[in-house]
Order: sequence, then C-alpha cells, then structure tokens
Amino acid sequence: MDLAHRVIAVVGGDEREREIARLAAATGAAVRAYGFPWPDGGIEGVTLAATAAEALEGADYALFPIPGIAADGTLFAPAAPEPILPDAALLTGMGPGATIILGWPDERLRAAAEERGIALVEYEHDTELMLLRGPAIVEGALQLAIAETDVTIHDSDVAVVGHGNIGRLLARTLVLLGARVHLFARNPVQRADARSAGCSPHPLEELRERAPGLSMVFSTVPSRIVDRDVLAALPANSLVMDLAAPPGGIDLDAAKELGHRAVWARGLGRRAPVTVGASQWSGISRRIAEVEDEG
Amino acid sequence: MDLAHRVIAVVGGDEREREIARLAAATGAAVRAYGFPWPDGGIEGVTLAATAAEALEGADYALFPIPGIAADGTLFAPAAPEPILPDAALLTGMGPGATIILGWPDERLRAAAEERGIALVEYEHDTELMLLRGPAIVEGALQLAIAETDVTIHDSDVAVVGHGNIGRLLARTLVLLGARVHLFARNPVQRADARSAGCSPHPLEELRERAPGLSMVFSTVPSRIVDRDVLAALPANSLVMDLAAPPGGIDLDAAKELGHRAVWARGLGRRAPVTVGASQWSGISRRIAEVEDEG
Amino acid sequence: MDLAHRVIAVVGGDEREREIARLAAATGAAVRAYGFPWPDGGIEGVTLAATAAEALEGADYALFPIPGIAADGTLFAPAAPEPILPDAALLTGMGPGATIILGWPDERLRAAAEERGIALVEYEHDTELMLLRGPAIVEGALQLAIAETDVTIHDSDVAVVGHGNIGRLLARTLVLLGARVHLFARNPVQRADARSAGCSPHPLEELRERAPGLSMVFSTVPSRIVDRDVLAALPANSLVMDLAAPPGGIDLDAAKELGHRAVWARGLGRRAPVTVGASQWSGISRRIAEVEDEG
Amino acid sequence: MDLAHRVIAVVGGDEREREIARLAAATGAAVRAYGFPWPDGGIEGVTLAATAAEALEGADYALFPIPGIAADGTLFAPAAPEPILPDAALLTGMGPGATIILGWPDERLRAAAEERGIALVEYEHDTELMLLRGPAIVEGALQLAIAETDVTIHDSDVAVVGHGNIGRLLARTLVLLGARVHLFARNPVQRADARSAGCSPHPLEELRERAPGLSMVFSTVPSRIVDRDVLAALPANSLVMDLAAPPGGIDLDAAKELGHRAVWARGLGRRAPVTVGASQWSGISRRIAEVEDEG
Repeated sequence: MDLAHRVIAVVGGDEREREIARLAAATGAAVRAYGFPWPDGGIEGVTLAATAAEALEGADYALFPIPGIAADGTLFAPAAPEPILPDAALLTGMGPGATIILGWPDERLRAAAEERGIALVEYEHDTELMLLRGPAIVEGALQLAIAETDVTIHDSDVAVVGHGNIGRLLARTLVLLGARVHLFARNPVQRADARSAGCSPHPLEELRERAPGLSMVFSTVPSRIVDRDVLAALPANSLVMDLAAPPGGIDLDAAKELGHRAVWARGLGRRAPVTVGASQWSGISRRIAEVEDEG
Repeated sequence: MDLAHRVIAVVGGDEREREIARLAAATGAAVRAYGFPWPDGGIEGVTLAATAAEALEGADYALFPIPGIAADGTLFAPAAPEPILPDAALLTGMGPGATIILGWPDERLRAAAEERGIALVEYEHDTELMLLRGPAIVEGALQLAIAETDVTIHDSDVAVVGHGNIGRLLARTLVLLGARVHLFARNPVQRADARSAGCSPHPLEELRERAPGLSMVFSTVPSRIVDRDVLAALPANSLVMDLAAPPGGIDLDAAKELGHRAVWARGLGRRAPVTVGASQWSGISRRIAEVEDEG
Repeated sequence: MDLAHRVIAVVGGDEREREIARLAAATGAAVRAYGFPWPDGGIEGVTLAATAAEALEGADYALFPIPGIAADGTLFAPAAPEPILPDAALLTGMGPGATIILGWPDERLRAAAEERGIALVEYEHDTELMLLRGPAIVEGALQLAIAETDVTIHDSDVAVVGHGNIGRLLARTLVLLGARVHLFARNPVQRADARSAGCSPHPLEELRERAPGLSMVFSTVPSRIVDRDVLAALPANSLVMDLAAPPGGIDLDAAKELGHRAVWARGLGRRAPVTVGASQWSGISRRIAEVEDEG
Repeated sequence: MDLAHRVIAVVGGDEREREIARLAAATGAAVRAYGFPWPDGGIEGVTLAATAAEALEGADYALFPIPGIAADGTLFAPAAPEPILPDAALLTGMGPGATIILGWPDERLRAAAEERGIALVEYEHDTELMLLRGPAIVEGALQLAIAETDVTIHDSDVAVVGHGNIGRLLARTLVLLGARVHLFARNPVQRADARSAGCSPHPLEELRERAPGLSMVFSTVPSRIVDRDVLAALPANSLVMDLAAPPGGIDLDAAKELGHRAVWARGLGRRAPVTVGASQWSGISRRIAEVEDEG
C-alpha cells in the first residue's frame, strides 16, 4: 500500500503504538505521534508532535488505541503528559472526509466526529483483531500460570471455562503442553470442537463435581460460573485465573480467602507489543485500504 | 438416560448403525434393526426385523441414516435386501407423537410424517455432528494423502483451501504432523484463526501464484477455486484432494490430465464406523433426551 | 559439493534410487544407473546403463541399496532384469581407491572389495539415516492403522511397545493426533522420556494387565513381548502392528486366530521415496564429502 | 512399596523436599525431616526433627538434596537454621547397612560414609531424573522468555543451541507453541532427530550467519558457542537465555552491553516443586526398592 500523500496521526496508547507508527511510516505516509511512550532513539519516519492537536492537524487518518474511551471521555494514554479528550475542538484540524480508526467511541466522540464530517471505523469487537492478539494473550496466561504454581502444566488436570476465541486457543495450547484439559462450555457445538482439539468436554454444570480433580482453572467467560461453591471444591492452593472482560467470571476474593492463588489476567492484550502492534497494523491497514478504495 | 419403556427402530445405513443400535440398546430401550449390514454374531439387545415395516411397528423413535434421501425418495441403505421408501404406508405402524431422527427429509417424507403426526428431527447440517465426525474425516484424508504421494507430509509445503469445520481441523492436524501449511480463505477472520493455529494464511487469489511451491492441495470448499490455472501451476505429480460436498471444488479431470494424483474424498464420514457411530449416538441421544423432557 | 570429475554408479534399489541418482547428478558428477525402476521420462543428468558392469565401469563411487544383500549374495533390486551379484568379477571395472556406499555387505562382497582395493562404507545401522527415514516410516504406520481400524486414532487408547528411534517418533505422533498413548519400555530412562512427550509410561510387564483397555498395539521391538497371553487379553478386533525387524515382536498368526487385525509393517522405509531418497542422499553425500576430504 | 518398618530422614533441600517427605510417609515409613522449608500446617506422617543428627538417628535411608555439596562440604539447605555438614560425626546415628541417596557426594562425605559402612546412591548425573525434571525446566524457560520479550514465541524465529535432554524438550515445546525453531548442534544424529520433531537443523558454525534472522536464542550447552560475534549479529533487543550448567555457554555481560535481554536460567529445576518433588520421589523410590530387594 502506497500512502505517500497521506498524513496519519497515532494518538494515545502504549508500546504497541510504537510498532503501529513504525509500520504506518513504512507505507510512505507522513506519520505524527503523540501520547504513547516515545522510545529514546525515536522511530524512523515518525515525527513526535508537541500536542495531540498538532498531531491531528491535517491528518487523513487518526489511529486511537484499542482500549477505547474512559468514563471521562479521554483516550487510553497512560504515558501522555496530559489527558487527551477527543472533543470537537481537538478534531478541528482534521478536515471533512478524514477517518478515525479506533477501538470504540463514546457518544461525545461520535457526535464530535459527525459534526466535523469525520468517519469512524471501530474494531473493538472485531473478531479478526482478537484472534490476531490471541497468541499474545495466551502466552501471557501461560507466563502467569507457570509463575504462580507449584506444579507443571505438563501432566496436570486443568479446566478451561468457555470456548470462545481465547478459551479455544488457550485450551489447545495447554493440550500441546501436555495438560489434561477439561473444557467446560454450555454450547454442545463448542464442546464437540474442543473434543476434536484433544480436550475432555463437559457441560458447565459438571464443573462443581469435577473441581476436586483439578489444579488450575482458567475462566474466559464474563458470567460467574466459577462461584464460591466451585472454589470451595477445588484442592487447596489451586490456581484460578480470570481472563474475561469485567466483571469477570471468578469470585477472586473468595478464591483468595479459600487459599487459592487468584490471578486477574486483564490487560494481557498489552503483552508482546511488537507482535501485537504488527498484528493490529495488519488489521488497521486493511481498513485504510478499504477507505482508499472507496474514496 | 433410561429408555426402558421405549421402542427404537434403526432403519437403513451402514456399519455406523451397528454401533448406534448397540448403544441405543444400552439405554434399556427395545431396539429393532433393519437395512444395515448385520454382524455375524448379532448385536446384544437388538432384534433384527424381517422388513422395515416390522422394525417401525410401534416405534417411539426411528433413526434414519445421515446420508439422507436419494433422488427416488429411498433411504441410504446399500446393504438392505430391497430399497426402503419411507412413505406414509411404511410409517403406518408408528403412532402419532412418534419421532424420526434423520439427516434430512425430502418433501414426500415431510408430507408423510405430517400426515401421521410424526415429528422430524434433522441433523444433516448440524455443526455438532460434523465436528464429532471431524477426526474420522481428517484421518481418512491423511490415509489417502499418505497412500497417494511419494513425499512425506512432514516437511512438505501443503495447501488447505477453506477454513470451515473440516478445513480447520485438517490444517491443524497437518501442522502437527510437521507440514508447512498454507491456508487459503476469503474471510480474514478465518485467516487470523488459521494463523493462531500455526498456518501461513493467504487470500484465495494468491493460490495461483503460490502453487509452484506446493506438493499437496486439499480443498474443502464447494466452489471451483482450484481451477485449471491453479492446477497447471502446481509441480508435476502433485496430490490434489477434494473434500467438499458435490460438485466439489477441484477440476479432477483436468488434474489427472495434467499428471497430478487426483483424489475424490467423498464418503470419508463413513470411516471409523465405531467411533463415528458412537459420536452420532451422543448427538442423537441428546435429541431424544430433549424430546423426552418436552413430552 | 562439486563432483564434476567424479563418476557415480547407482546400482539396484527401488524408487528411492531415482531421487538419489537425480541429486547425485546435481553435484556435477557423471551418474550411471542400473537395476532400479527407470522413469518414462528418464532422469536429468543420469545415464541408464545396459548392465551392472557397464554402470560400474570406471566409477569412483558405487551406491548400493539400503536393504542390503540377500542370502544368495545378490543386491536388493526387484526391478532389475536379472539378479545383480556383486562379486569380484562385477567389481573389476572399479579401480583401486574407489568406494562402495551401501547398507551392509556380506562376507563375499567384503572379500571381493578387499581383493580389488575398494573401500566399503556401511550405513544400515546408522542412527542418522534411520532418524531421517523416521517420518516416512511413521506416516506409513499411520496409513495402515487408519485403513485397518473401525475407530479413530483420536481419542483411542493405544500402546507403543519400545521407545527406540521409531517407537519414540511414532508415540509422539500418536499423542499429537489425539490418542492416549501408553508407552511400554524396559528402560526407565526411556519411560521418563516418553512421559515428557505426553505418553503414559509403563514397564513391559504391565502390558498384559493393561491390554483389555487398548484398541491398538504397535510393537517396535524385535523380541516377543506381545505374546499370545497379551493378545488374548486385548479386546476383540484390535489392531496389532509389528514394526520391528525380523523376527518381529508379535505373534501375528496367533493375533489373526484371536480375531485381531494383524499387520506386518516391514518395508515402510520404502514409502515416500522422494522424501526418503533425498534424506538418504543427504547422508550419502556427507560420506562422500568425508572420502573426498581424506583423499 | 511397603516400608512400614523403615525410617527415612529427609535432610536439607527446598520446597521439593516437602513433597518427597510427604510421599515417603505414604509408604508407611517413619519419616523425619530437617533443614527444608517447613509448611505451616506440617506434613502428614512426617516429624520435624530439632537437628540434623536427630533426623538421622537410626535412619535406614537418608535423602540429601540434588544440588549436592557446596565447596565447604555443606548440603544445599538455604532454609536450615544452620549449615548441615555431613561428616562422620553427623552420620554416627545411622547404622552400618544404611543408605544415603543424594545428588553427588564430595570426598569428605564419601570417606565418612565408608567409615560408617553406609552405602551412597548418587543421581546427579542420572538421565532419568533429568528427564523427569525436564517439563518443569522447560516451562520455567517459557515463563522467562514470555516475561522478557516484546514479541510472542508464536510466529517467531528462535534458536536452540544443543540437543541434549533439555535442548530437545525445549525445542519441541517451542515448535508446538508455533515458533520456527532453528536447532544448532554439532552431532548430525541430533540434527536428524531435531528435524523429525519439526525443527530446522543446522551445524553450529552456521549460528553466526543465521543470527540476524533470530529474535531469541536459548543455549543449553556449557561451551561458549554464543560468543560476542554471534551476539553482535543478533537484532537489537533479542532475548538470549543460558540454560547450561556453569560456566554456561553465553557471554551474558557482552549480551547486555550489546543491548540484548540476557537471562541466566540456572535453578529452573527448582520450579514446580510439587511436580518435581513427586518426579524425584518416583526415581528415589525405585532406588529404595532396589536396595530392599538386594537386602
């Protein structure tokens, strides 16, 4: 993709945005950065702007980070010198016909974009990007599981609750590492899929009775399946890890009280920022290509 | 599941139905069989009926085979002494409220069942059953691929076209056997999924240009992606295997003409009949349980 | 390796020798062939000789096939128009200082070579070449196992007896295909190795008591561990496959008598001749390089 | 194994010894512990001794830890209140005919044991125990690699140097996690083995030229293969991990100087103490059984 006459602003985010900005510059576009951790040696082809407004001035595309918008309307940008509020004022510099690619907007940003004639392309709930981040998330879960246990994954009996994008990839990886993986899911299609990947599939309601034979429980579902009853039935000192979006699926306080190692694995998507940044760029660049083709 | 007061008829089919009948009898039901290959030693708890009508007389459930109904309206029953036509006359012996569980009915069977007050439960397009049959189908494809080639799967460059239930499982298995698997799919979500499973994903339109580097092509899509152009670009003596439903996705005549080993892999679902029969029974018995719960 | 001034004779063998001859010619050597199945289109850079003597005339290297020498002293050469007896007369055309690379010689060949001042390089018992052939042998065993059974490898309980080069690779591959693999070996080091690869290891003497839970037994040891007692304890219609060198480790006649599917898997090393020929060439060419370096 | 009339002393060590003591007690033996971290709730069937001498008094078997003897002659026992020196005085309480099972003795301990008529059984260099610890060591290496890198193991190009017990298991595991694994070894038999496990094998001397394409290097050999030349050729910010026994195979200071993430992975064998303790007990108990059988 040759974007030689385009201007791309990368605003907010974390180490992943470094890789995204670097790859954006490799298309030939002029790239301006603001609000993510800037590396000592700079990034080839990328200009650091002094403010978010300066970065956005005249941009054809603005890339905002995946974690989306906080309750106060600001972007995810822990390394920014000050909060970044993407209101109509900030977007002034982007002309009509420009595009913002982002996780998801709140109502204020949606209104501001409409006012300025700016298109929004969302990918928070994009299955492709979730799958591309999958290996980074699963490896992060492995790291935590290895760090927090007195047993090996190999030759252990472990449970994975849920067989969505992350549950499926995690379960398969644990099988390959030599665990006996018990996959708990409500949906019989998911259970059949898990069986073909080498798991022992079970309906959710069997989790309680199988708990005494497990040494690790990974939950990937947002509902509270791993409740106090299940936790009380696990052997002492089990690992319980919650990989679901808030409010999660495990009562972690109860887990700690009962003597388990309770791990809240939010934010694993920020792991392996070079790999994940590159993956996200592959999705972002396909969306840019679609906009260019339409234009 | 205790079906002690139920009568189940297993009519038509192949070696899989032996296992289905055997497992049906293990529930305590009275099981009558007709029209599938009867083993020399019989099947414990199963009675062989002299005609299809005798098997169906008074049955609460009739199990018809997955391959469904031929163009002339008869059931798949290659081992039956005569064709089995499930018309209203044949169904006379089943009372109102009975249930037929089958792949899929044609219009005549649908009308006949309605006339008699018999419910139909279809599973031909059932993803769960397809996934449960998946390992048998994939192992059958491996057997053919090993038999038909002069190279090992290990350390070969192979293509899988399509990433549906069978394509996905086949691709992952080939990865585990040590092949470099190139996965071709139109859908970027499927490509991202394939990548997480260790494949190199590509859009369909790249198949032609990558063909010279491949030694095996497995197609699981019903449309003609692997056309004469692609076939002509493969190295001489490649394996091309079509795993899709008719009309398939590979021009097998052209493949042979061009000196390839062209394999039509229909009917792999009939492999491993004990495993597959047991898998299908697990799906059938869940449907029976649902009917019983509602009744 | 540049062998532009060398003459290589490839004498006897099967389809593997085609690939060996082809790759030998790619070094720049003059290559003459006799006694293996000659392809319709010929082989680039390789001359078909009319007799074995013509092929060997003036050769610096003669490559004889791996299966070695029959009881009557002739080479393995099922496609040759007449038996090839490598006696002193036949070797006359090779000068002193020439080298024969082969599986293993008998006494007559050894004496003939010594008489002519020809060096012998043997590789029948070469672990490297066995490992390079390993994937072809294991895939051949998979093909037979899939063809001969009514169950899938996936989700079956299978036994591998012996954990040498082939047993180890076979066991690991069966694990990856989703079998529960019980590995029987006398040596605790081998059992510990098998455990790390995802097998359940057991001492040999437990085979008898575990037999009723198995559906396939693969024996890779030459001694008779899988005896009539073990065979009688297997479920009816089990698969028993012997992968060991003669006299093998399974009483196959007893196995058939007892209603099992008994498979004698000798000769799997002849599978995938292009891959295996290339593997063998990589080993042969390293030996040639050593001879050249010394010369 | 019934050891009802035996006394076993477990002296020194770390969390692994808890599991060893617990399993020793399950044989019916009287078990006395000293010098490893004692858990709050105690260990069922195990008595905590006040001194090492008290633990050893009348013991039939003494189990000393794997890490062996320090330069000053004391046992590995970081949690002991005072150093444990296994001299003739300390061993006084063990009668002639008793047995010490340990990693390896120094000269003083060997002399002291001989003086007292005590047998020594060593397992430091025991391949079986190394293989049983293998999965714990490999998982520890994965944890460090995931923690220290900005890329995923999945879809990365990584090198493993050496294909001994740990190198082989590590390489295979990295393959299963989706890395492209380049295996560097001097021995062609090891390279052929690595190839069959899905690695790309290379001779050691190619490490330098392939370094620019790698993002992680794991060395398992004690000699300095990964020297400054190789390190300088790696991309900036690579991971280099040394898994070999001292003095190791990587110049870690140079690695840091050159901007790499240099990790010294000694002591990974202490990970997963419950699993590893149980593994070691399986080896120790087999040795006890041999002593009992001889006795």
